[in-house]
Amino acid sequence: MSKQATIAIIGLGRMGANMARRLQRGGMQVVGFNRSDAVTQTLAKETGLTAASSLQDAVLQLSPKRLVWLMLPSGEPTENALQELTTRLAPGDVVIDGGNANYLDSQRRAQLLAQHQIGFIDAGTSGGVWGLENGYCLMVGGEQRDVAQLEPVLKLLAPAPDRGWAHVGPVGAGHFTKMIHNGIEYGMMQAYAEGFALLKGKTEFNLDLAQISELWRHSSVVRSWLLDLTAGFLKQDQKLEAIAPFVADSGEGRWTVDESIRQGTSTPVLALALYMRFASQDKEGYGNRLLAMMRNAFGGHLVKDKTGD
Amino acid sequence: MSKQATIAIIGLGRMGANMARRLQRGGMQVVGFNRSDAVTQTLAKETGLTAASSLQDAVLQLSPKRLVWLMLPSGEPTENALQELTTRLAPGDVVIDGGNANYLDSQRRAQLLAQHQIGFIDAGTSGGVWGLENGYCLMVGGEQRDVAQLEPVLKLLAPAPDRGWAHVGPVGAGHFTKMIHNGIEYGMMQAYAEGFALLKGKTEFNLDLAQISELWRHSSVVRSWLLDLTAGFLKQDQKLEAIAPFVADSGEGRWTVDESIRQGTSTPVLALALYMRFASQDKEGYGNRLLAMMRNAFGGHLVKDKTGD
Repeated sequence: MSKQATIAIIGLGRMGANMARRLQRGGMQVVGFNRSDAVTQTLAKETGLTAASSLQDAVLQLSPKRLVWLMLPSGEPTENALQELTTRLAPGDVVIDGGNANYLDSQRRAQLLAQHQIGFIDAGTSGGVWGLENGYCLMVGGEQRDVAQLEPVLKLLAPAPDRGWAHVGPVGAGHFTKMIHNGIEYGMMQAYAEGFALLKGKTEFNLDLAQISELWRHSSVVRSWLLDLTAGFLKQDQKLEAIAPFVADSGEGRWTVDESIRQGTSTPVLALALYMRFASQDKEGYGNRLLAMMRNAFGGHLVKDKTGD
Repeated sequence: MSKQATIAIIGLGRMGANMARRLQRGGMQVVGFNRSDAVTQTLAKETGLTAASSLQDAVLQLSPKRLVWLMLPSGEPTENALQELTTRLAPGDVVIDGGNANYLDSQRRAQLLAQHQIGFIDAGTSGGVWGLENGYCLMVGGEQRDVAQLEPVLKLLAPAPDRGWAHVGPVGAGHFTKMIHNGIEYGMMQAYAEGFALLKGKTEFNLDLAQISELWRHSSVVRSWLLDLTAGFLKQDQKLEAIAPFVADSGEGRWTVDESIRQGTSTPVLALALYMRFASQDKEGYGNRLLAMMRNAFGGHLVKDKTGD
């Protein structure tokens, strides 16, 4: 006879699976569901979680009051699961979206669920693949009574029961806070990247970037977890010749800049960090081609000369 | 009879005094000199360092091979001390500049001292007022034999003998590395500042910025020492109404951008973080007055209306 389960995790990708692992290790019985059943079965064998074969099955295996934690890609997968849950759950149950949704969507979704007396919590979740060992930083938005119901789960997922999680405000405030967190992350990453590019560019000093990143980890003003990670990979390979100079972006950086425009708050560095990612993604280089042609038009500068003059 | 001293610290301001304290605590006898003798005498009483009444006196109280560590404002004070030291020191002695000099100046100064067979080390020093307890992050440029002579000092100043200090390259490389460190610092600080401004700007959520900064310290991707400090002061006061919105800059941020132009390396976020400080320093706002007048000229927009339309 398995322990009574009150929480299901829907979506057992990298993040969802590790969160299920952390809860199971903490002594909590989790029901898990993933679109690909093989993933669910493997994780069930590994961790002892209760495998569910469908969203409906997951709900049926929970005791009220149910907690259903979505760890799905933002957009359609999350939207579809929420729509279905309005018909599967009962009043008093609570849905948590732990993914990276736009907070405006979260506010709308909470209203939809509220029509069925189902609670909604937006739980911005940071920590990446390191969350399993270190715990997750959880930024939680929602009604007080819903958050109270989720509290035992939050305390297990966080680095410690008394830190790394917080109820930051009403529905939407959790994903809003996570969005800003990621916006800041873009800016910090770009600042490091530009600085290391200058170190590398000073060829006469032949600097050892692995040595310097490691050095800066100790008592410098720029020490951070991002720097710890950077020192880790530079130690292995500081030339990065096998890495494409292409930086993906997810929605959060864009939403942060949308928000700055909505507010009329000046956030030029966060916006520029996002635009630098777009520039890295631009294989066509149409703007630069145009600039080369303009220089050619007014000054007769060669357009094929790679030095640009 | 006092222990034999081989190192003098010239300039006992906030940084120099704390470095002298740390060396004395570590069991090393330090000769100290400060322009204001009262400062030297007070520190001598507190720490047991050997007070010197002049730069010449400091040199005379050292046993060869002498180490003279300058902790002076960059520019004239450092330049003057170096000029005098060329006549006071002997071949085999080493001068260390621990201040924030431009690395191009350091390269020039090393050449000057080399004409007198005096060594020169540029030791970029980070850690601020926390260095006394935590140790300093030391980025050291110079000749191998000079750095070897300084090594016992570096091991005491650093957070631990085996970390937080490194010989990063030839003369100039230490101050160069420190300059880039500070450039990155500007970018990181601006990223946090813009993110917190967005949190504050979202008035409908009434977010507790002290709570969020503390939350982010635990397992989030943006955790850092700068965030630790930010959480510390936001806990005391998150309105910051008594703080003028004026951000000073020292030379390092400007030199970093100079360097990016010298190299032709694109560092837009580091440059913009610097320019945002300039904007904060601009009381006259001439550029914005001009823009207001342009809007007035083409669209008849009111120039005195603070909303700008």
